Amino acid sequence: MATGPCIDLDRLMGRLRALGDVGALPGGGVKRLALSDEDKAGRDLVCGWMRALGLEITTDCIGNVWGVRRGREDTAPVVIGSHIDTVATGGLYDGNLGVLAGLEIVETLNDAGIETRRPVAVGFFTNEEGARFAPDMMGSGVAQGALDLAQTLATVGIDGQRVGDELRRIGYAGDAPPLALKPDSFLELHVEQGPVLEREGIAIGAVTGVQGISWTEFTVTGVSNHAGTTPMAMRHDAGVVAARIALEARTIADAFGPPQVATVGSFRLEPDLVNVVPQKAVLTVDLRNTDNVRLIEAETRLRSAARKAAAEEGCTVELRSLARFDPVEFDEGLVAAIETAAAELGHGVRRMPSGAGHDAQMFAPNCPTAMVFVPSKNGLSHNINEYTAPEEIRAGVDVLFRVALARAGAD
Amino acid sequence: MATGPCIDLDRLMGRLRALGDVGALPGGGVKRLALSDEDKAGRDLVCGWMRALGLEITTDCIGNVWGVRRGREDTAPVVIGSHIDTVATGGLYDGNLGVLAGLEIVETLNDAGIETRRPVAVGFFTNEEGARFAPDMMGSGVAQGALDLAQTLATVGIDGQRVGDELRRIGYAGDAPPLALKPDSFLELHVEQGPVLEREGIAIGAVTGVQGISWTEFTVTGVSNHAGTTPMAMRHDAGVVAARIALEARTIADAFGPPQVATVGSFRLEPDLVNVVPQKAVLTVDLRNTDNVRLIEAETRLRSAARKAAAEEGCTVELRSLARFDPVEFDEGLVAAIETAAAELGHGVRRMPSGAGHDAQMFAPNCPTAMVFVPSKNGLSHNINEYTAPEEIRAGVDVLFRVALARAGAD
Ligand SMILES: NC(=O)NCCC(=O)O
Ligand SMILES: NC(=O)NCCC(=O)O
Repeated sequence: MATGPCIDLDRLMGRLRALGDVGALPGGGVKRLALSDEDKAGRDLVCGWMRALGLEITTDCIGNVWGVRRGREDTAPVVIGSHIDTVATGGLYDGNLGVLAGLEIVETLNDAGIETRRPVAVGFFTNEEGARFAPDMMGSGVAQGALDLAQTLATVGIDGQRVGDELRRIGYAGDAPPLALKPDSFLELHVEQGPVLEREGIAIGAVTGVQGISWTEFTVTGVSNHAGTTPMAMRHDAGVVAARIALEARTIADAFGPPQVATVGSFRLEPDLVNVVPQKAVLTVDLRNTDNVRLIEAETRLRSAARKAAAEEGCTVELRSLARFDPVEFDEGLVAAIETAAAELGHGVRRMPSGAGHDAQMFAPNCPTAMVFVPSKNGLSHNINEYTAPEEIRAGVDVLFRVALARAGAD
Repeated sequence: MATGPCIDLDRLMGRLRALGDVGALPGGGVKRLALSDEDKAGRDLVCGWMRALGLEITTDCIGNVWGVRRGREDTAPVVIGSHIDTVATGGLYDGNLGVLAGLEIVETLNDAGIETRRPVAVGFFTNEEGARFAPDMMGSGVAQGALDLAQTLATVGIDGQRVGDELRRIGYAGDAPPLALKPDSFLELHVEQGPVLEREGIAIGAVTGVQGISWTEFTVTGVSNHAGTTPMAMRHDAGVVAARIALEARTIADAFGPPQVATVGSFRLEPDLVNVVPQKAVLTVDLRNTDNVRLIEAETRLRSAARKAAAEEGCTVELRSLARFDPVEFDEGLVAAIETAAAELGHGVRRMPSGAGHDAQMFAPNCPTAMVFVPSKNGLSHNINEYTAPEEIRAGVDVLFRVALARAGAD
């Protein structure tokens, strides 16, 4: 296919804005946490679009939804997908773009009356963000056999609610079992969420894989006591231990150097009162590295530093793994196809790993998988000011379209 | 008075247990935050007892309540008082003991038919703990002119509610203006809340004064971003700055040595999600010292360390004073009277400063004031395991009774 039908950028941007209105925050950006009322409203909107496009919709037992456009042959579909849940301070593009780009491709095929050999499916996967329930990539993880269904349904979120209950509550506990979705291949368009493409002035990232992700929750237990009367030497302050763990995470990342990153995103004290020595602290550490050996080193060092800090303060510390995904490599054939498509369309392209986790990484072990990145303004994501310009989006969708169509067989 | 009427320890312990049942926690201890439903229930209970004892009750505009037992002369009363609010993980004794000891003394006087020259009043003062609303000693501070009424009524608590609204909601917004309570003298019996008396095997502390208290809230503002894609060098992580401030507080206390103490009791991140670099952190630091010059040094050093940490991370930091009370000295005559009474009753006694803030410190500038301490098991307080044995309580009430009666004039 040298030239082909053109996507309608305005139509795509219109859908992005409409979905962005669901859970819109007063100051801009979106809050549509997985399985919340807002997530339900967003799902309903996208399912309506799927139906209007004639897709055959399936919902599975973890709330993943995909709509299939039949091909000439009744084979496994080329799946284009991502997620529509957001973090609490999210933007309009993260995840949403990959799903709505899929719908835009389907609508363009419909309008042009193009039949493909393989079916083309568009899907969105439950709780990719991991913001309300850990781990991230929950829906795609269950769908592709990386996570256990029963354990996942029992997961308790930051607000004390359970995944299974919330799925039923919003009406998205479907019938299809894990592994019901068997793609021929999986393609995901996503905003980079980092600074590289913008800094280098390159339109397209051909993503080679996803770095390893390690989330650990540390629970420190000390003894609550009076802030005014308890001599420093007699304290067992869970908060001080937690602060030491947080700074050790930073120290490890600095010492290891790029691509090691370390983030303490959540940090809570009990009873959290100004004049009470904290009896309990719960904090999370997110460690990532493309090199699994280095990642394991970082985990080991952090754990022993945490145990040492707790012991010195006369506290105890318990560790719980919230997420642990090894680094993943994408399909060389598809990565090369993305490079070629970008070049043919006249876009600058570079290979790059992904710093963020993505649904694609859950599909990669089971089928040829790859991702297309487009630039993020100022490298911002998980921030209400996340932004990618319409023409940058067009470039990404065009590349995705070309690769998907070649894979699905439009000739 | 060489010998006098005896208090009824069982009756006092019964009242302590009954009040402790109001807001009792499942695992023991009490949660009766100021102006909560539980506080209202506790207040109603104590007011019922006051009425049954024939006390004339006054409620002032900040919700302080006192009940007066008339004397032969219509002069200023000897006030025995403390507070009945607790922290979120409180015990049965902190505050409650001082109020119920007052009622026990009144009932003993009633039973024995003893008339005093001056009136004797028993009071409880709103939000001494400062756990829900800052500052601590709020009610006694307003009553004695140390805090502004209008500003205090507008104070927003940790749950977003206002003092004035909550006072009206629970029906304790009274008519009496600030300074309506003009004591002849103020006496407060309290658990030590620290380890000194127990360690030294001494029954009675004759409290010489209260150390200076400084509460500061630090609000750090950074930039939220993606935990996986944001290189360490590009981060503006509000949580890292907050952790540095927390550890600097500990470092200052260690460097200054006793009696300097420093506590980070509250620490919150926004958005508080595992894979989002925090855009905001709010933490409190509680600094105390008997020496105001040293306390100011500690405050200054902490502030400049906070500004430096914020600048290094490309964040900003704002400071808000939540409470600032200079050290206070109690009345030498009353302190000596407590020593004498303890000795006459055969109890070991030592002079000591108070590490905790107390309502008495708000009265000290306006009238002769002093406090009696009794031991705290394992030095624990603001902890559900706070404990003082009945016989230790009896010793404290006996000393208080003797000093109060001498002051009120029972001859
Ligand atoms: N793409 C994305 O933001 N995923 C969320 C999972 C993570 O990387 O933490
Ligand atoms: N006595 C007591 O616990 N007061 C609370 C105020 C404080 O010292 O922080």
